[in-house]
Amino acid sequence: MKDELVFGVNPVREALRGARGVHELYVQSTATDHRLEKILELAREKGIKVIRREREDLTRMCGSSHHQGMALKVAPFPYADLDDIITSASQGGSSGFVLVLDGIQDPHNLGALIRSAACAGANGVIIPKDRACGITPAAEKASAGAVETIPVAQVTNVVQALEALKKSRYWVYGITGEAESSLYSVAFSGNVALVIGSEGEGIRPLVRKQCDVLVSIPQYGGVGSLNASVAGGIALFEVARKLRG
Amino acid sequence: MKDELVFGVNPVREALRGARGVHELYVQSTATDHRLEKILELAREKGIKVIRREREDLTRMCGSSHHQGMALKVAPFPYADLDDIITSASQGGSSGFVLVLDGIQDPHNLGALIRSAACAGANGVIIPKDRACGITPAAEKASAGAVETIPVAQVTNVVQALEALKKSRYWVYGITGEAESSLYSVAFSGNVALVIGSEGEGIRPLVRKQCDVLVSIPQYGGVGSLNASVAGGIALFEVARKLRG
Repeated sequence: MKDELVFGVNPVREALRGARGVHELYVQSTATDHRLEKILELAREKGIKVIRREREDLTRMCGSSHHQGMALKVAPFPYADLDDIITSASQGGSSGFVLVLDGIQDPHNLGALIRSAACAGANGVIIPKDRACGITPAAEKASAGAVETIPVAQVTNVVQALEALKKSRYWVYGITGEAESSLYSVAFSGNVALVIGSEGEGIRPLVRKQCDVLVSIPQYGGVGSLNASVAGGIALFEVARKLRG
Repeated sequence: MKDELVFGVNPVREALRGARGVHELYVQSTATDHRLEKILELAREKGIKVIRREREDLTRMCGSSHHQGMALKVAPFPYADLDDIITSASQGGSSGFVLVLDGIQDPHNLGALIRSAACAGANGVIIPKDRACGITPAAEKASAGAVETIPVAQVTNVVQALEALKKSRYWVYGITGEAESSLYSVAFSGNVALVIGSEGEGIRPLVRKQCDVLVSIPQYGGVGSLNASVAGGIALFEVARKLRG
């Protein structure tokens, strides 16, 4: 597995404070940002090598100009295998319970969802590799350490992951605003895979097709929908209450 | 009511894009941040006067050096009166349902909680004036417009607000990790005031004393607690399901 590069003031600071291994810190030669001082202090405390680079070099390294003059090499996040999650979930006799996130974009939502999944007693979380937020240091921070207690698998194809779960006798429940059945009317037993869509788009059509049941969280007022991590938390705990309670 | 000052790149940008009235934009004379260009463009589009100031002047105005070279005067948020919330909640014959937030610090959590309260059909939200996040442009944004659909009252004393609610025949339920009774074992009927504590500290002792019942959200795994906005969402929807469902 290859090292990853995080960049920008906040991601770099969070990575320096996080649990994952960190390597070199790259800093723009001409950087004078007052926040840089604190970053350099954190790097010193951790004994990390600091390398000065031209602004253009950093932009090329990061593939983006939004690095705010700093980039940090971090050890890759230790993702789990989907098969291992399925295997370990079937041990111990209780129902398997897996959270599938179809394209969460925001690291705070991703972190909060993983934290909620851990608290709800889920066996693992599945996220897609593309067009979705991975376990960045910001997501790790928002999970409040939960990424170290619950396995997270990154898959190239969510549809195939759901097919694999179904082969292992999982029922797949998708949460979507348009569904007529209420979350509260479902019994939830056996092995449960709970699918939550992305913040803007919800569950993608092909993934939706793989869901055995679509359910909605009833709305009692307001004009909009719930925040994705709140909707996920409500659904996770409703399943947990019926499956684990 | 007095105008408020928001400062820093993100708060200023969000305020310029938000629904509240905005007045002058103050910009550091020597500022060259690349993000400033976009801010100035937004200000031009809205026809807002731009005033240049020395860095030290901005620091004095903001009472903080974390202004990133920009500050914006915005119209005050139109808070509701606690009495009006109580009066309007008692109209229409259904149970009153109020969310009380005892010191939420993070604008994203505050916004998400207000959004959840609106979706759960609550009649209003009560927040303290001191040592808590107010309705800043960032909180407004996180609420996804919900601050315009549900009244929010800012009170100087949460204990007195709970006393006023009790006089209007509200039962006060506090959510806390240490409580022995489960959220799911409570019937929830009549008028309900739901109290959620701050991210780090939970409900303060004097506020806790005012709670008629303390309940916890059962944890089925993990090592930590839930994110405050997720815990609030779960509790709000459990009340709504029993009160409004």
